[in-house]
Amino acid sequence: MFNDQMVIDGLQYSNWNRDYLLMLKASGIDAVHVTLVYHEDARATLTRFAQWEQRFEQNSDLIMAISHAQDIKEAKELGKVGILFGAQNCSSIEDEIGLVSVMRKQGLAIMQLSYNNQSLLAAGCYEKHDPGITRFGEQVIKEMNRVGMIIDMSHSAERSTLHAIDLSERPICISHANPTFAYEALRNKSDTVIKALAANEGLLGFSLYPLHLPNGSHCSLEDFCEMVAKTAEMVGVDHLGIGSDLCLNQPQSVLDWMRNGRWSKKMDYGEGSAGISGWPDTLPWFAGEEGMRNIYQGLLKVGFTDPEAGQVIGGNWYNFLQNSLEPMPELNSSYETVSKSSEELV
Amino acid sequence: MFNDQMVIDGLQYSNWNRDYLLMLKASGIDAVHVTLVYHEDARATLTRFAQWEQRFEQNSDLIMAISHAQDIKEAKELGKVGILFGAQNCSSIEDEIGLVSVMRKQGLAIMQLSYNNQSLLAAGCYEKHDPGITRFGEQVIKEMNRVGMIIDMSHSAERSTLHAIDLSERPICISHANPTFAYEALRNKSDTVIKALAANEGLLGFSLYPLHLPNGSHCSLEDFCEMVAKTAEMVGVDHLGIGSDLCLNQPQSVLDWMRNGRWSKKMDYGEGSAGISGWPDTLPWFAGEEGMRNIYQGLLKVGFTDPEAGQVIGGNWYNFLQNSLEPMPELNSSYETVSKSSEELV
Repeated sequence: MFNDQMVIDGLQYSNWNRDYLLMLKASGIDAVHVTLVYHEDARATLTRFAQWEQRFEQNSDLIMAISHAQDIKEAKELGKVGILFGAQNCSSIEDEIGLVSVMRKQGLAIMQLSYNNQSLLAAGCYEKHDPGITRFGEQVIKEMNRVGMIIDMSHSAERSTLHAIDLSERPICISHANPTFAYEALRNKSDTVIKALAANEGLLGFSLYPLHLPNGSHCSLEDFCEMVAKTAEMVGVDHLGIGSDLCLNQPQSVLDWMRNGRWSKKMDYGEGSAGISGWPDTLPWFAGEEGMRNIYQGLLKVGFTDPEAGQVIGGNWYNFLQNSLEPMPELNSSYETVSKSSEELV
Repeated sequence: MFNDQMVIDGLQYSNWNRDYLLMLKASGIDAVHVTLVYHEDARATLTRFAQWEQRFEQNSDLIMAISHAQDIKEAKELGKVGILFGAQNCSSIEDEIGLVSVMRKQGLAIMQLSYNNQSLLAAGCYEKHDPGITRFGEQVIKEMNRVGMIIDMSHSAERSTLHAIDLSERPICISHANPTFAYEALRNKSDTVIKALAANEGLLGFSLYPLHLPNGSHCSLEDFCEMVAKTAEMVGVDHLGIGSDLCLNQPQSVLDWMRNGRWSKKMDYGEGSAGISGWPDTLPWFAGEEGMRNIYQGLLKVGFTDPEAGQVIGGNWYNFLQNSLEPMPELNSSYETVSKSSEELV
């Protein structure tokens, strides 16, 4: 039964007004990974947190902040939607290792190491060359492991992704992307990456963003579920979830910020092109409150058992979060080598 | 017995190297209100938090962060010193109401509404004119009440202080200052202020900073304790604590930053003067690990009972913190009037 499941959407960046939050609650979703920031620096990230605090105050009957997995159970019991924050790029920590713990304390649970472009940490999926994880990136991965912030490589390049999987002492995620075997796109992931991710207890969230799917906005529910089934044949069902990448009711300015940040003088179309520069049409079977129920039913139709379909629509995300969000201080205490004198610290 | 007491120092801004932390632990102090920032803006405040996170990592056997009163009990049980963060000015929230909750979540438990000068919130004690709490200040007081951040008026002017006591729905503190009846100084507080503070369940922390004391660095332990006794005669013992204002081993640069921030082209000497521009000599009976024990014994000598002396050296601070640090969401939910459209919030 759909209603018995823990339902988690592993990425959305919709316009979070009250109408949308009501729709989200009606959809049966217990928790959603919300994009807090794209290219915001540390200071601007604080304002995003402050704006969400205001949303929590104004909609305390509908939503609550999630910092640890058990908070999702509490949200479910209270009939609220849990909000888990993520950053699509690593701009929030700027060039300062200490900001990892600061942002984690503020509520940032997931961070991508790069977004399409080369970052201070890793290469993005649209770069021609991918040097792998940088020197700063290695330190940040250790620190994210220590404080319980999840590494997300959705928009990163292949070599950097494999390198991150290898370096990280805790499982990582690709919160929203699809296998390239289903649709060849720079943003999608090779079998090599998916196998390495799963072998290290990581999690892949299947994307409902049309530009990640065969036939774009015309991709059928059945084709989507067949893609999930084929991936499960390859790596098992325990490492698969949904990261819908759903974006509703956002103005073009948000799309522009997401794609261009402050880095490009000429328009960059991301996964789109000059011909299709706006938002792609949302999949009709995932646009409204029936979206997750439709996927659940679709998964049963292509042969998943009821518990397996439950794993994919949220159970696996829950287990992954349970293993990922607690701090593990013992993982990193090598401050000896880089510690500054107390005088300098003042 | 001194060892049975909960010992809390309501303000220090020493150089927090490991030697000092060892001394602090040996002194029997269970928790200390640490000055995190003076004039740092929001971004710079994050770096201060990050530096403290590094200190916690490096000295996890000695110190732990305190966010709520019960954490102090845990610290005492673990034999660690609890660190409670405060801001001596309100620069950390800049001009943004939403940063109050952001800074509280990060661990800022106490904030002064002004530091010597006029701030965006209140007048400082060295201003000629004191307009009272500003329009922004009224909002910030409400928000601090809501999230459980303590209002501290140690460096604020009299009218602003009385105004804050009146506006705040929760008790406030003057974490480190002395009565003007003991020593006439702009930084010290009139009987009017102390009575209003106590009548509203607030807390006064007596300062050990020589420039707040009769005879400066030569103030005797007995004179100090007589000042406490005389104040207790005026307002009772329940609202009195220690806020030593102790500063050890800091370079002149910290003193300059504290007094001058970025606001003054000419040297401002704060409570000092051109003649005594450096750090005043610390009181010999409060310089080392016997400081709080000496005060405890001194209080007994001037007539306080054992439980009363225990209240002054920490028990009252503990009760005050217990009533002050929990959020009270019901105190402020008037976002209707100032809420922005969801579009604007994005």
